[in-house]
Amino acid sequence: MNLPASLRFHVLPDIPMILAGDDLAAIIAASLERLAVPLADGDLVVLAQKIVSKAEGRLIPLHTVTASERAIELAKETDKDPRLVQLILDESSEVMRKRPGVLIVRHRLGNVGAHAGIDQSNVDHAGGDCALLLPEDPDRSAAELRERLHGLTGCRFGVLIADSMNRAWRLGTIGGAIGCAGFTVLDDLRGTNDLYGRELKVTVINRADSLAAAACLLMGESIQRTPAVLIQGLPPEDSAQSARDLIRPLAEDMFR
Amino acid sequence: MNLPASLRFHVLPDIPMILAGDDLAAIIAASLERLAVPLADGDLVVLAQKIVSKAEGRLIPLHTVTASERAIELAKETDKDPRLVQLILDESSEVMRKRPGVLIVRHRLGNVGAHAGIDQSNVDHAGGDCALLLPEDPDRSAAELRERLHGLTGCRFGVLIADSMNRAWRLGTIGGAIGCAGFTVLDDLRGTNDLYGRELKVTVINRADSLAAAACLLMGESIQRTPAVLIQGLPPEDSAQSARDLIRPLAEDMFR
Repeated sequence: MNLPASLRFHVLPDIPMILAGDDLAAIIAASLERLAVPLADGDLVVLAQKIVSKAEGRLIPLHTVTASERAIELAKETDKDPRLVQLILDESSEVMRKRPGVLIVRHRLGNVGAHAGIDQSNVDHAGGDCALLLPEDPDRSAAELRERLHGLTGCRFGVLIADSMNRAWRLGTIGGAIGCAGFTVLDDLRGTNDLYGRELKVTVINRADSLAAAACLLMGESIQRTPAVLIQGLPPEDSAQSARDLIRPLAEDMFR
Repeated sequence: MNLPASLRFHVLPDIPMILAGDDLAAIIAASLERLAVPLADGDLVVLAQKIVSKAEGRLIPLHTVTASERAIELAKETDKDPRLVQLILDESSEVMRKRPGVLIVRHRLGNVGAHAGIDQSNVDHAGGDCALLLPEDPDRSAAELRERLHGLTGCRFGVLIADSMNRAWRLGTIGGAIGCAGFTVLDDLRGTNDLYGRELKVTVINRADSLAAAACLLMGESIQRTPAVLIQGLPPEDSAQSARDLIRPLAEDMFR
């Protein structure tokens, strides 16, 4: 994909609190209309994982969870609610590291981070403590939202579902992509030449995470009520890549 | 800092190939003038590490480097030029992982990644193989550029020096901040409340890396000749934070 000379990131206005079963595509389409900027094929709709998960009914009341012995033991080691730890284990393929307050796992979708992306902030705990899981298949969710948005708006947007991620050696979270449809997520420049004709041997650019990072910054994490962002300036694309393509294969993991 | 409703990222036009001793601030100021958008306090000037390093004369001809026994041994294990490995060791505090083709170190500035950020692409090897080191003190470079740009333009910009970074569990590089001046790099929300009045216990947002990521995407990595980006829409700030504040303390490293 050719690089543009500028990019614009717009917060989508007036997204209501999302509940299970809400028609997220219709809500986003209505917000895009209110945004009142000319929409174009290639524009990227970035959605916070949280609203996709909520719409898909992934909010789990903890009183419905029974902790296994392993979860109870891990909960003691990490100072956590055993039922929350059970959900983390259910959503993970491997416990990577643990210590009081921290449980780093490999999520079943491949990403390594704290607590399998399970979140308890900005969810309604009125009926008792709850925890919000990642969507079951965020790439599928992104692809479906893309198709519905095409039907509603006539535009071939890319769709990116973003979640805040923590990193081993850097403080503070940044957004990353957990579900993608309709745009290039990895730009593989290996084999092309640099300005001096020297071959680029290792250059692969993670476009999806790069865009997710700035979009999530604009969304905020606390009380902004701005869980969606439109990125304009990207050329139209119809890539078949998905967020799964961003996961480093297990065989290459040097920090297991 | 309050979050804006939109952000604009502009590639800075007509930046020439940078050579040691070039007056980078003057070159950026001239480019900002050609960009012809209204500049404002709080706008963020993002510069590729490469041009800052070049201007500061950090391009090292390999024939001037003598490899130690340790470098020669590591070079055999990793299939690399022993002189390049010597530079990597000189720039690092710790070798984290190694295997053929890959040498992961903790840079003396704290970040963990491949090859201590040393790069051989888009540098002039006409006089023999060269390698480009990170600036000696990128936070200082950012602060100095900020002052010079203030003098030249009258604007209090933030300045961010960005480098592409690799990550343990995700493919493809994204930009990250190695030098920062004049803006909030970490937004610590711990202790504030979410929409439902629940306290945010762990939420710290890495603003600098979030902005560096999208800016670096726009710069490209190969033949674009666009090593600088202006980000508009951020409020004016005068933070004393620097990129060093983004490094997770050694005592918290769970993947050493």
